[in-house]
Amino acid sequence: MKKEINIGLVGYKFMGKAHSHAYKDVASFFKLKAKPVMKAICGRDEKQVKKFGKDFGWESYETSWERLVKREDIDVIDICTPGNLHKVIALSAAKEGKDIICEKPLANSLAEAKEMLRAVKRAGVKNMVAFNYRRVPAVCLAKKLIEEGKLGKIYHFRAVYLQDWIVSPDFPLVWRLKRELAGSGAHGDINSHIIDLSHYLIGEITEVVGMQETFIKKRPLPKEATGLKAKSTKRMGKVTVDDTTLFLARFKSGAVGSFEASRLASGRKNYNYFEVNGSKGSLFFNLERLNELYFYSQEDAGDTQGFKNILVTEESHPYISAWWPPGHIIGWEHTFVHEIYDFLQSIARDKTAEPSFAEGVRCQEVLSAVERSARGKRWVAVG
Amino acid sequence: MKKEINIGLVGYKFMGKAHSHAYKDVASFFKLKAKPVMKAICGRDEKQVKKFGKDFGWESYETSWERLVKREDIDVIDICTPGNLHKVIALSAAKEGKDIICEKPLANSLAEAKEMLRAVKRAGVKNMVAFNYRRVPAVCLAKKLIEEGKLGKIYHFRAVYLQDWIVSPDFPLVWRLKRELAGSGAHGDINSHIIDLSHYLIGEITEVVGMQETFIKKRPLPKEATGLKAKSTKRMGKVTVDDTTLFLARFKSGAVGSFEASRLASGRKNYNYFEVNGSKGSLFFNLERLNELYFYSQEDAGDTQGFKNILVTEESHPYISAWWPPGHIIGWEHTFVHEIYDFLQSIARDKTAEPSFAEGVRCQEVLSAVERSARGKRWVAVG
Amino acid sequence: MKKEINIGLVGYKFMGKAHSHAYKDVASFFKLKAKPVMKAICGRDEKQVKKFGKDFGWESYETSWERLVKREDIDVIDICTPGNLHKVIALSAAKEGKDIICEKPLANSLAEAKEMLRAVKRAGVKNMVAFNYRRVPAVCLAKKLIEEGKLGKIYHFRAVYLQDWIVSPDFPLVWRLKRELAGSGAHGDINSHIIDLSHYLIGEITEVVGMQETFIKKRPLPKEATGLKAKSTKRMGKVTVDDTTLFLARFKSGAVGSFEASRLASGRKNYNYFEVNGSKGSLFFNLERLNELYFYSQEDAGDTQGFKNILVTEESHPYISAWWPPGHIIGWEHTFVHEIYDFLQSIARDKTAEPSFAEGVRCQEVLSAVERSARGKRWVAVG
Amino acid sequence: MKKEINIGLVGYKFMGKAHSHAYKDVASFFKLKAKPVMKAICGRDEKQVKKFGKDFGWESYETSWERLVKREDIDVIDICTPGNLHKVIALSAAKEGKDIICEKPLANSLAEAKEMLRAVKRAGVKNMVAFNYRRVPAVCLAKKLIEEGKLGKIYHFRAVYLQDWIVSPDFPLVWRLKRELAGSGAHGDINSHIIDLSHYLIGEITEVVGMQETFIKKRPLPKEATGLKAKSTKRMGKVTVDDTTLFLARFKSGAVGSFEASRLASGRKNYNYFEVNGSKGSLFFNLERLNELYFYSQEDAGDTQGFKNILVTEESHPYISAWWPPGHIIGWEHTFVHEIYDFLQSIARDKTAEPSFAEGVRCQEVLSAVERSARGKRWVAVG
Repeated sequence: MKKEINIGLVGYKFMGKAHSHAYKDVASFFKLKAKPVMKAICGRDEKQVKKFGKDFGWESYETSWERLVKREDIDVIDICTPGNLHKVIALSAAKEGKDIICEKPLANSLAEAKEMLRAVKRAGVKNMVAFNYRRVPAVCLAKKLIEEGKLGKIYHFRAVYLQDWIVSPDFPLVWRLKRELAGSGAHGDINSHIIDLSHYLIGEITEVVGMQETFIKKRPLPKEATGLKAKSTKRMGKVTVDDTTLFLARFKSGAVGSFEASRLASGRKNYNYFEVNGSKGSLFFNLERLNELYFYSQEDAGDTQGFKNILVTEESHPYISAWWPPGHIIGWEHTFVHEIYDFLQSIARDKTAEPSFAEGVRCQEVLSAVERSARGKRWVAVG
Repeated sequence: MKKEINIGLVGYKFMGKAHSHAYKDVASFFKLKAKPVMKAICGRDEKQVKKFGKDFGWESYETSWERLVKREDIDVIDICTPGNLHKVIALSAAKEGKDIICEKPLANSLAEAKEMLRAVKRAGVKNMVAFNYRRVPAVCLAKKLIEEGKLGKIYHFRAVYLQDWIVSPDFPLVWRLKRELAGSGAHGDINSHIIDLSHYLIGEITEVVGMQETFIKKRPLPKEATGLKAKSTKRMGKVTVDDTTLFLARFKSGAVGSFEASRLASGRKNYNYFEVNGSKGSLFFNLERLNELYFYSQEDAGDTQGFKNILVTEESHPYISAWWPPGHIIGWEHTFVHEIYDFLQSIARDKTAEPSFAEGVRCQEVLSAVERSARGKRWVAVG
Repeated sequence: MKKEINIGLVGYKFMGKAHSHAYKDVASFFKLKAKPVMKAICGRDEKQVKKFGKDFGWESYETSWERLVKREDIDVIDICTPGNLHKVIALSAAKEGKDIICEKPLANSLAEAKEMLRAVKRAGVKNMVAFNYRRVPAVCLAKKLIEEGKLGKIYHFRAVYLQDWIVSPDFPLVWRLKRELAGSGAHGDINSHIIDLSHYLIGEITEVVGMQETFIKKRPLPKEATGLKAKSTKRMGKVTVDDTTLFLARFKSGAVGSFEASRLASGRKNYNYFEVNGSKGSLFFNLERLNELYFYSQEDAGDTQGFKNILVTEESHPYISAWWPPGHIIGWEHTFVHEIYDFLQSIARDKTAEPSFAEGVRCQEVLSAVERSARGKRWVAVG
Repeated sequence: MKKEINIGLVGYKFMGKAHSHAYKDVASFFKLKAKPVMKAICGRDEKQVKKFGKDFGWESYETSWERLVKREDIDVIDICTPGNLHKVIALSAAKEGKDIICEKPLANSLAEAKEMLRAVKRAGVKNMVAFNYRRVPAVCLAKKLIEEGKLGKIYHFRAVYLQDWIVSPDFPLVWRLKRELAGSGAHGDINSHIIDLSHYLIGEITEVVGMQETFIKKRPLPKEATGLKAKSTKRMGKVTVDDTTLFLARFKSGAVGSFEASRLASGRKNYNYFEVNGSKGSLFFNLERLNELYFYSQEDAGDTQGFKNILVTEESHPYISAWWPPGHIIGWEHTFVHEIYDFLQSIARDKTAEPSFAEGVRCQEVLSAVERSARGKRWVAVG
């Protein structure tokens, strides 16, 4: 087996930075069967990509992803671009036999996502969709408690993912607010996360009914749009994605679900909250306090039942032994280190990575069903 | 104007006790134009109602509500019975010219509620539906902040009302679990509260889409059912109401809403939670900490924005000057004292009580629309 | 045994109101062996005391406590005056054979407190010092958990009692800020509460070292001082009590303790917080959320240890079965109902009331030792 | 000016790992005038130090610190050893003209600390003591708010630093529990942190009174002691440091303070909590939620005062612009990146680093005064 895995990463903004950090740090903290080599970073603006590459220790840079995917010294293509490029890059990379990790949501449409899945299956390459919140230790602990039956039969899953970064009407029309680039708004960007978490924790969603709204319909065009920071011009353009999407769902298991994503929830910065209620217990989680999991058990003594705030920083907790002693909390970026660790290990061990593109398609099916439901004002079966 | 208002109360269990306490205490803490006189308590079980009457200081008791409503020494009929009796008592009371306060939801069906509204209008009597959570000081403060424009344009209202008192399958089939007595389950009992709060805080709901579920379909018949406490027999009976009801909504104002009621949410005891997000700020509230309101303002200085935990126990806060110094919290029962205070004042001042039966009907229209939506699996216009 | 206990209460401001409410409500919610009869309320201002008596249902009023204690129709004297009157009233009442409940701290000095204890012992009357926070259900649960050994060997007790009602230098010089009336400031008023709680939960304190500070040394004289509300004049007077007192302590059990009282802690309204750490677990409590107890157990499964937020509103919790279903929280005033209930039961059952004047003296010994320690800048043995 | 700064680090366990990570990442996220080069890592166990060096990207390794400090290619000596080696390494490094960053507390005694200070002054080298919690963004914000006068005159500083990693009596006698290696226990290890924070936020401490306790006096000898993890043998040895140290303090400004450190506080993992109360406002902070600062202002509108939970992850907050968008929290390790960033910048800009060894001595003076106070059972002046 190879001792090293050569990485080529497309994109160097928000997600590109998070992934680069993960490649840079993972081998210092985790024991890997094969270590990543930061071969090449790719972006269109040569000056910027070159500087970024230097800052994060990439060995080389490319300004064309087409060139990157053809490089023979590259084993893995990591896709951190806007959604409109996911498919074309993934298809090319698969054709070249590269293993692929792709940012979420997998694609801008269900059709594209399915095409990507077919491509990686055909090529027989490892593939992962980067739903990093599956790698929050507290979320892994939630999964463990559910699987151990600590919550009993699950009745409820309810999740919101709330942000407020576009609450000002002066915030400019960045790429994430344009359908042709981003596919959708809050729905694909953040509902996708809580949909994936529901799949992970509860299982398959069978039907949905939803609604979408764009409250702020026009925004100033950006002078220069870089990730979440941008300056505005005075010209206005049309917002073509949702500010918010809500939906109700039924799970195959019988549980009922409620989902809501918004970018207009003043004061909620990165409030990815979910709660699970079962016959024996409940749990809830909030990404803004990602080191904590709340757990209630009907099996505790009658007069001492209550929601327990578990500080998920013990050596026995998932991923934590790699880091620091109890109470020394980790941050958001660590979820990417865990994700990259798992992806690299799945390559080195020749095992299926989770969540794979198949999971990405599952999520996309729900996203798509909700959109159709919102348009048709009716329940829609998923898949 | 009369200096005293004579009360006749039907029901002496959970709600009867809460209302009795309110009549008993209100004049000690609040300055009233006309004080209540606890004339008569009414219930079917003579022994029990007699004892209850003695404990709470009722001057007399009745075992027939028909007799009570005809008593000439009674000015107000207070209805704390199961929902199936609301209409018939209210109609009789109205006919006799009594002012009426009635527990929520106003009736077991929209039709009944409308009939009750017509009756009180025809009779010209004061009427109030006992949505006591409008009288939580923190909720009143929320209303004030919204009205002052502190939240700007409202985008989101999201509320859950979660309890877990029937999560054990051994919990018996009490009256609240039978449609013919209770009208519905979690929906009418607790969704009604958050619907009413949404009306109070946000305004009219125009359309809804919902779902309902009864997870535990059979339960042991009760030996003796008293409020929330009950003993079981070994025979089983069918649960004919919902364990949970969820729905999405659009408000006339353009805001979107999400509602959920459940009695199977392990660990949530009386978790009436709502959150409002607007263009300038947000707020949230949780009944289990009813002395607190969380408020976020975009207008705070940039580096000190955050959700503020307002301990709503200052003399300047609604109702609080009647009670204790700052930080000396009030309890759930106090909301009834406030409600009765307001109702008595509306009688003494000859002003419309809020929320009136008209508000009760508005709530019932939403309850009904959600039920039709759940059956038809489609969006339904309200009203 | 008598079926009724006749009460005479001296004082009708903050504490007088809290006690009056308790007498008024206790028999409605609790089953008593002998019910209280609200015979007479006593205060110096006839107009005010008369009105108060009417509001709360006192049968008569007195403007002289000397007359009150001599009335033959009175069984219990309840002392809710400023501290400078505790001793003289208690001694007279004891002489008349009345049972006595007295507000805390028991006296303005240790010598006075001891004299009061001797008097009630000599007279053989029931006696209680009104440390109402022993009657918070969550505090009782804390006591139970400690007694059951759930915390193991206790290492730490740490408590603060923080308020901010005099943080404005314009707040006037009310009686609580004058040594001759109040005995001391934050120390006697609120340190006394957490000292008593430490006695209740941990046991005897053997030695202390403390410090005291009066940050705001002059304040405007009040026009009219009524409890915590007061209007100022322009003349200034000297504050003769502490704004804050802190001390460290050793318990007989070997545990170490930290105590702090302040009336200048901006934002802390009634923040009576204590924490106990033991070899097997910990717990903490905050009076501003008095329905909650936080409990950590080393005996929970390794990956689910955490502080549990117990909502102390279950029927199985102390005092709660008298009130409302789970999650329907009680308020600060309820602690007085519990206290009066226990006091009345101790009289009816002819048992020693807890905490008795002996406990009041124990607390006073600590208060006194801390004051001597602060003056002498050294450790002082208690008692 | 040099474009690179060559680092030599002594120690590769807990702190060595945290510092190594910081050197590895700092230049990826922060713009530095001179970048660090990870020249050499030093430790006694060749196999372990070699492996560690490889994992974190150190160019070389040494097994003798004496050799390291003499290497001409080293600019900075970073001391992450147990306290007993701080002085000797620092003195040698200063003699060689190296800039020095040293873990806290600066030394095992005040005398040693002073000697170190003289040495760096004499040598004219940059020096910093690694009190990393000054670099928590929320703590920096607290400092800013205090300096801006948002809290008014400061009355109270109260801090606890609570952990529970030695609460089991079976936990072995690691170096941190031996006076000859660690100098003291909880006192030097974690009280030092909150003392330094009090200096940073409030200013100089003038006198103290304290107490110390070792509850668990004997522990099993360790087979192999590595940082906080260790295996035990069956032989027992004597614990020669404190489990807990508490003290009261007076600040030069007039404020009063309370401090407590414990390693036996079940459930408190890394609970570094401080609260500041002033005439205009208050704030509090808890390291287990290090992205949050709570702030109360008397200047808010009367009915919306409350403790505000500021999520300190905005671009405008200290250090945050280098990291992620709002709500994407950072972890404990980031404080070291900030610290190393500031240290490197102070070297590159030839400015005094803060906190310098002078600050380290200030802290040591308080540590020493508390120890003398505990022995003598009296107040002791600091310095």
